[in-house]
Amino acid sequence: MDVIKMLEWRYATKKMDPSKVVAQDKVDRIIEAARLAPTSSGLQPFEIVVVTNPEVRAQIQTIAWNQAQITEGSHLLVFAAWDNYTTERINHMFDYTNEVRGFRNEGWENYRNMLLNMYPQRDAETNYQHAARQAYIGFGAAMIAAAAEGVDSTPMEGFDPDKLDAILGLRARGLRSVTLLPLGYRQEEGDWLAKLQKVRRPLDQFVTEVK
Amino acid sequence: MDVIKMLEWRYATKKMDPSKVVAQDKVDRIIEAARLAPTSSGLQPFEIVVVTNPEVRAQIQTIAWNQAQITEGSHLLVFAAWDNYTTERINHMFDYTNEVRGFRNEGWENYRNMLLNMYPQRDAETNYQHAARQAYIGFGAAMIAAAAEGVDSTPMEGFDPDKLDAILGLRARGLRSVTLLPLGYRQEEGDWLAKLQKVRRPLDQFVTEVK
Repeated sequence: MDVIKMLEWRYATKKMDPSKVVAQDKVDRIIEAARLAPTSSGLQPFEIVVVTNPEVRAQIQTIAWNQAQITEGSHLLVFAAWDNYTTERINHMFDYTNEVRGFRNEGWENYRNMLLNMYPQRDAETNYQHAARQAYIGFGAAMIAAAAEGVDSTPMEGFDPDKLDAILGLRARGLRSVTLLPLGYRQEEGDWLAKLQKVRRPLDQFVTEVK
Repeated sequence: MDVIKMLEWRYATKKMDPSKVVAQDKVDRIIEAARLAPTSSGLQPFEIVVVTNPEVRAQIQTIAWNQAQITEGSHLLVFAAWDNYTTERINHMFDYTNEVRGFRNEGWENYRNMLLNMYPQRDAETNYQHAARQAYIGFGAAMIAAAAEGVDSTPMEGFDPDKLDAILGLRARGLRSVTLLPLGYRQEEGDWLAKLQKVRRPLDQFVTEVK
């Protein structure tokens, strides 16, 4: 299946079949796609919390407009971005990169220093907003990877992030919730969107050329 | 090629071969992936400007840390988000959706009204930031689609957005530049990153489970 077919196949599933469980190897590949997704300066300033616990998911549903896919699906992916770019976090990724590659590159070290002189001095909110944008790249990659696996997913921004952070203890880990992605299998009967045509603006309202 | 292989193949190409041109059908499929990418409430609050004009790309390079891929590649995709969510823009997408689907759905109309009562009342900067996040989903989809086509790309945030907006006349169109994505073909000789190992944090630093 090519990428366009994956994107055409997927839709924001409105009703999932609670009797079906996504196999672990599929979940693993969906997460791997998010892990491999590119991020600014390669910092990967986000993490994923995979919630399968039914009680915790029920609690999350109550602070997420009662969207039932959170409990009807089998896995809930929570994308959580760094609350700030700190010296420690930047150094960790650069040190880890040097360790994996087995050498220090002067240009790369200069780049590290440029980031160290820029990011930790900015306010935390600016840094969080930047980190959250990166999480959206991984979020999108996970949706495409889910489609490739024949797994339905529902991208969600509609939840109370402060309450979700409290439920999952994210702030203590320096993280702030950004998006939700329940994984499961569509239950077409009862899903008002399942059979409706996907609508996207036509190309002439989406692309312009400067030739 | 599966999604994980696409993500493993791609890298932020540092040097592109200026003698090679990406075929139009490949560019079209890369843009189509971005067009099909999911966005919040299906509003698609971003557009893509495809710059092939060499003089314009040379001008953009000067306000983008002189990153040479902008002119070495054959196509420059500029992802530009809506500067605001307006009543007109929201109504346009809902009206267009009704037109394509051929009917009005009451739940969908209620949802439209909820957005109309929320988004246009918020400040433009909040709305732009939300729109820009959506652009990152399409930005990521385009990178994956490029890899599927064997096309190299370089995600870039390093440019002066105000100056780019001025060069392309984006503000007059209600748009603000968010990211750049040059498309082309790697020139491995001269690309310091081409042969280095891709580094991502290990799973135990990326995923936690709540079982």
